[in-house]
Amino acid sequence: MGYNVGLLGLGTVGTGTAKIIMDSVGRHPLLEEISIVRVGVRTLDKARAVEFETGVVTDDLASIVTDPNIDIIVELIGGVKPALNYILTAIEHGKHVVTANKAVISRHGDEIFTAANAKGVYVLLEAAVAGGIPVLTPLKQALGVNRINRVTGIINGTTNYILTRMKNEGVDFDEVLADAQRLGYAEADPTADVDGLDAADKIAILASLAFGGRIKLDDVYCEGIRKISAADIAYAEKLGFTIKLLAIAQGHRPENGAMPTEIELKVHPTLLPKHHPLATVDGVNNAVLVEADPLGEVMFYGPGAGEGATASAVVSDIVSIVAALEGGSQASNASGNPLLRCSHEHYTPVAPMDASVSRFYARILTQDRPSVIGHIGLAFGDHGVSLESVVQIDVHDRGAEIVVITHKVNEGKFQAALTALQALEEVVSVPSVLRVW
Amino acid sequence: MGYNVGLLGLGTVGTGTAKIIMDSVGRHPLLEEISIVRVGVRTLDKARAVEFETGVVTDDLASIVTDPNIDIIVELIGGVKPALNYILTAIEHGKHVVTANKAVISRHGDEIFTAANAKGVYVLLEAAVAGGIPVLTPLKQALGVNRINRVTGIINGTTNYILTRMKNEGVDFDEVLADAQRLGYAEADPTADVDGLDAADKIAILASLAFGGRIKLDDVYCEGIRKISAADIAYAEKLGFTIKLLAIAQGHRPENGAMPTEIELKVHPTLLPKHHPLATVDGVNNAVLVEADPLGEVMFYGPGAGEGATASAVVSDIVSIVAALEGGSQASNASGNPLLRCSHEHYTPVAPMDASVSRFYARILTQDRPSVIGHIGLAFGDHGVSLESVVQIDVHDRGAEIVVITHKVNEGKFQAALTALQALEEVVSVPSVLRVW
Repeated sequence: MGYNVGLLGLGTVGTGTAKIIMDSVGRHPLLEEISIVRVGVRTLDKARAVEFETGVVTDDLASIVTDPNIDIIVELIGGVKPALNYILTAIEHGKHVVTANKAVISRHGDEIFTAANAKGVYVLLEAAVAGGIPVLTPLKQALGVNRINRVTGIINGTTNYILTRMKNEGVDFDEVLADAQRLGYAEADPTADVDGLDAADKIAILASLAFGGRIKLDDVYCEGIRKISAADIAYAEKLGFTIKLLAIAQGHRPENGAMPTEIELKVHPTLLPKHHPLATVDGVNNAVLVEADPLGEVMFYGPGAGEGATASAVVSDIVSIVAALEGGSQASNASGNPLLRCSHEHYTPVAPMDASVSRFYARILTQDRPSVIGHIGLAFGDHGVSLESVVQIDVHDRGAEIVVITHKVNEGKFQAALTALQALEEVVSVPSVLRVW
Repeated sequence: MGYNVGLLGLGTVGTGTAKIIMDSVGRHPLLEEISIVRVGVRTLDKARAVEFETGVVTDDLASIVTDPNIDIIVELIGGVKPALNYILTAIEHGKHVVTANKAVISRHGDEIFTAANAKGVYVLLEAAVAGGIPVLTPLKQALGVNRINRVTGIINGTTNYILTRMKNEGVDFDEVLADAQRLGYAEADPTADVDGLDAADKIAILASLAFGGRIKLDDVYCEGIRKISAADIAYAEKLGFTIKLLAIAQGHRPENGAMPTEIELKVHPTLLPKHHPLATVDGVNNAVLVEADPLGEVMFYGPGAGEGATASAVVSDIVSIVAALEGGSQASNASGNPLLRCSHEHYTPVAPMDASVSRFYARILTQDRPSVIGHIGLAFGDHGVSLESVVQIDVHDRGAEIVVITHKVNEGKFQAALTALQALEEVVSVPSVLRVW
């Protein structure tokens, strides 16, 4: 039996998707049953890397999502609107949906999955997180028999590329960003990437799979990499750490192992010990580390973006739907394959950041006086913050540069200690505060 | 609807499997539909870490695989016989099968899958390769839309543990093996692990999924780690390499991208550049690297053995079958979910090792004469073997120790050069020859 696909968007990922489906030799045999029958684009007169028969390409996207001839809609136009509308209309018309759109899912997953469940169709989104790396599917399926305790990801390629170059070349953020923009690794408006918003979208999706509840995107604590300086990276290196932008979803389960009633959900730069499995994930690569009971730690690593990688994930979702349909599984609540469905209906509360526990790194500029380390130590100690190390890294004409690493401490306590520290006479400024794994 | 499982074997993995299924709080909701109704053990009077109701545990395994009340047989007794018999009888009686038994699958997969396809039942084996790491399922499903070109694995935890300790402690093979046996990381008869046979079983399974054909186990080239000395590891380290026992399945596809007509399939110790993603996989961990087009490189990393990890994979297979059955997918050829079926019917030929191409490392003991490097270079050059580096690592009273690394060369040519080299007057012996990534 054949399955008809309508493709919305023919940019990088859309082109890659079409290339795989239209050249199925030597790939999974199910690909032979899939045809792209309609392709929706913004402008018809652009040159394209793939050729379709006359009449397939159209700029009337609304006609695709209602086309009774189409079984599966592949949404690759990105952004929230009008993507959301197309997805909901496609579902309303009984079509299965595959999307690479983390923004629309993290903001409107609620509506989308409620509609999909009501209508009995599948909505799959492997490509939305970590590009070509199969990670949502294993989380939903193979790893789901475990009690997942934490998911930690390097899931934004642009920031990882920038941090890797800063480390390797010893240069500052602005310089690398400008070069990354020139080379196409960062967008003209880099906000979504460098401020951590893209990673927040993705960790919200990972968390909802890992902890079985929907997530309010506004609950994700989000801190980007703009403040990271070459000095911080060099000091981290000296102390045995690499700085990575981590997205973390963590749940503390009750004693009986039930789903956590509250989770931590945060994106921030982190000093990662060099022996940590995520510490060597460099450049535009992504990786997701899952800690689960009784499994232990597993990591998925690979290309987080790019035409081929993302298209691979999109097509694997199409094939999963086709396989389920071939096997007779419609997605209606009564009979669809439950491993492909999204069945969460409640929201998982996110703990306030103040209650979060972490180690901290602080770089402190001070006057060069013998008493300064003592006073710093006391300022922390008075607030119950115990220090793992205090190192005077550098002394120059502007004073001394001191780096402190704390033991694990509650975020609120640390911030109070920091305020007291900044009031000290010898302290000139605290240019960086970062969390430590 | 409920599903009844019959468990064969209640050793480490069987116990772990029972623990997950019998304590389903906070795990995938499908687990609640699964009950272990029969457990087959060798001796009834042994103390067990899990308790079953009276009558569940039996030493009559044959009665379990024919029990009409059972939907899924989980075979965890290992070894070829009588496991094969139980699996075939279970299939004959229309039961789905989950197994962690790489030996029986790599030797009798042919019979087993032919019988399963004829009877319309699923046979899943995620736990047979790389323990708890989901790797067979992604290979069959998400990665299958790609053209897979190579699968490389560190898939034997015992040898990786031994090599890691040899590297960290600078000691020789025999010493670490004895200690590993004492600690339970190596078996009393370590042959299957240290001679690479276990890895050969597993790479045969990975290759059959990656390249869509069945494999004759005897075709896998297999070389273990007994010959690796502390000296080799130290020299490799100096030259920027780590020695790992790699299992490699590689296919050269024709220009149109079709499945390769012949593949390379080999297990051997390999000098791996330190920046290679597999180079940092240490201890009992496993990892599998897949190179695919258009995806690129993805790696799966995690615990390759142990009660919890392996049980996680076993239970995920059970849940996959239950999900497919819930969704209405019987495995009959007409209607089963094709992503869970094994559909290969032909054998993929394996290329002779002589035709394989690799870089080589050779450690050569020679007399300490100025002419010796020249003569070695000529011996290789005369046979068309070009050298990447020749380093005189050490000179001691027994002579000089020279390490050669070649450029990529055909295995046959290299062996001919080696024979010529050994005939040189200055050459005392060639204690190690290893392949280089």
